[in-house]
Amino acid sequence: MEYRKIKDEDDDGSGGNSSDIENLRGKPLSALSVGNVSANSSELAKWKRKSVVTLALTVLTSSQAILIVWSKRAGKYEYSVTTANFLVETLKCALSLAALARIWNHEGVTDDNRLSTTLDEVIVYPIPAILYLVKNLLQYYIFAYVDAPGYQILKNLNIISTGVLYRIILKKKLSEIQWAAFILLCCGCTTAQLNSNSDRVLQTPLQGWTMAIVMALLSGFAGVYTEAIIKKRPSRNINVQNFWLYVFGMIFNAVAIVTQDFDAVMNKGFFHGYSLITVLMILNHALSGIAVSMVMKYADNIVKVYSTSVAMLLTAVVSVFLFGFHLSLAFFLGATVVSVSVYLHSAGKLQR
Amino acid sequence: MEYRKIKDEDDDGSGGNSSDIENLRGKPLSALSVGNVSANSSELAKWKRKSVVTLALTVLTSSQAILIVWSKRAGKYEYSVTTANFLVETLKCALSLAALARIWNHEGVTDDNRLSTTLDEVIVYPIPAILYLVKNLLQYYIFAYVDAPGYQILKNLNIISTGVLYRIILKKKLSEIQWAAFILLCCGCTTAQLNSNSDRVLQTPLQGWTMAIVMALLSGFAGVYTEAIIKKRPSRNINVQNFWLYVFGMIFNAVAIVTQDFDAVMNKGFFHGYSLITVLMILNHALSGIAVSMVMKYADNIVKVYSTSVAMLLTAVVSVFLFGFHLSLAFFLGATVVSVSVYLHSAGKLQR
Repeated sequence: MEYRKIKDEDDDGSGGNSSDIENLRGKPLSALSVGNVSANSSELAKWKRKSVVTLALTVLTSSQAILIVWSKRAGKYEYSVTTANFLVETLKCALSLAALARIWNHEGVTDDNRLSTTLDEVIVYPIPAILYLVKNLLQYYIFAYVDAPGYQILKNLNIISTGVLYRIILKKKLSEIQWAAFILLCCGCTTAQLNSNSDRVLQTPLQGWTMAIVMALLSGFAGVYTEAIIKKRPSRNINVQNFWLYVFGMIFNAVAIVTQDFDAVMNKGFFHGYSLITVLMILNHALSGIAVSMVMKYADNIVKVYSTSVAMLLTAVVSVFLFGFHLSLAFFLGATVVSVSVYLHSAGKLQR
Repeated sequence: MEYRKIKDEDDDGSGGNSSDIENLRGKPLSALSVGNVSANSSELAKWKRKSVVTLALTVLTSSQAILIVWSKRAGKYEYSVTTANFLVETLKCALSLAALARIWNHEGVTDDNRLSTTLDEVIVYPIPAILYLVKNLLQYYIFAYVDAPGYQILKNLNIISTGVLYRIILKKKLSEIQWAAFILLCCGCTTAQLNSNSDRVLQTPLQGWTMAIVMALLSGFAGVYTEAIIKKRPSRNINVQNFWLYVFGMIFNAVAIVTQDFDAVMNKGFFHGYSLITVLMILNHALSGIAVSMVMKYADNIVKVYSTSVAMLLTAVVSVFLFGFHLSLAFFLGATVVSVSVYLHSAGKLQR
């Protein structure tokens, strides 16, 4: 099966131009800073920026899932997933460069926004891409032990692994209430996805569980490591950081085309099977990737996990109207638990 | 259908002798009070008493459910539920009197432990029994709109109604975290009970929902009202309060025998169909009822709800070993949410 659909919703945590987001941010800030140019207004500006990128990620992730459902319904599975992934990385690179060009125009080239880099800075950038590569390779093997719906359930282990690695690697503390909220988030997301076959996942053999846990750790580690890279140099422009992340993404995906889909691309052409939906999905994946990077820069992995979890619920609700889906009782229960978890995460913050 | 099984797990919130519980409590207290006779040790004593009655309620409720499963398996449905209920009330009355006799022997008759009462004190005692009677009558009609498993799901509305009425009637405050915990308790209990047919409950017509909500309010109100009665006179001996609650329970159940099962009792005899399990169930119901009263006196309705919810989970776990039941993924998720809820309820307390 050389031609597959983009279905893995994990992003390699990076982001490019996002000039739209920058503009969105610019407006309220300038309006506000007229009245009050204090530390408070800078806090408010940070909060607004964080909220905008989080909202963008939520909307983009949610529409991403809807595009996947739409493409399934339209029966479009014919394009090569490796070429699509390569185009996503290329588009993100291009958007990062476009944003940088605009910034250079306005502010001139500074130490923080110059593209040239040192080996010391750039050497860590391929690591998240490598981690995702290993995780995606493992993905082929785990299906020997669990079916696809079971894998969707097990993917919720990512939530826990991200929390634990966030604590260990970034050494950031969550309050006890926030830990409780995180466990609830994992339970709520899983509950919302329950269906009549979900119990089969309990029969997963030990190897399956081990692989699922290893994959969750790889995915969580990649996310947390990306945050560590981006946050290590807080003053460095995010578009430069993204550019380097995506360059390695392009290289790895080019290798994937050559090793996996070379014959198909040669015989049928690079864009074989592409449709309007494919183009929209590529555009959406690129923007989502950029939004993930922005969330890593201006918020953190915890916010990313909440954002994508809420997006999962939004997708289901929107699907009711778009595709006539029926929501299950389990969905309502899971959605309520996730909502309470979001509340507790923010209520728990006050205690610190 | 004149002969039915005791299946309603709601207790009319009252309690009698419980000399076992008193003895259990007595030991650690006397051991402790030797070292430190301060306000702290009195707090500790209260906490211990609260813990013991809560634990007793949890274990009794849990074993009650196990007895029901056991009796179903054994196929014993032949006894009259009205006579069994009457015996439960009678036994509770007898146990209350026995406990009082013991207290009169040790401490003499005082204003707080004398059995004689005023109309002003006693007039409110039949109210919880009347509320439960109305609720049990409604129960026959709700099955026109929902099936039995659906009704089990809807019964979790009791959790929310108890919380709301506890707040309104007893004017006791829960912190925001504790409210969040209460919503989680309701979601967790429902999740743990999910099965492949649970979604049918979403098709419940408006009348069914209305009746379910009215029944939840009646049940919640009965519980909260019982707590109000018992707590109104804190120094009054709990066994006296229980005696009067149970006397009205006996009267109402005697009326039920005459109106519902009179012919069957006359023809087949009062104890027709009784077995060892029936006797154990009556004993268990009596002790559970007493434990509920004790929880109302020394803790509150919120603790009662947590206790019976945890008992529901315990029952499922014990059933795995006793009856070879399989636990579903939904059960694990629900049980985790309930556990987090218990933690949050106590963590939320510290903020007040």
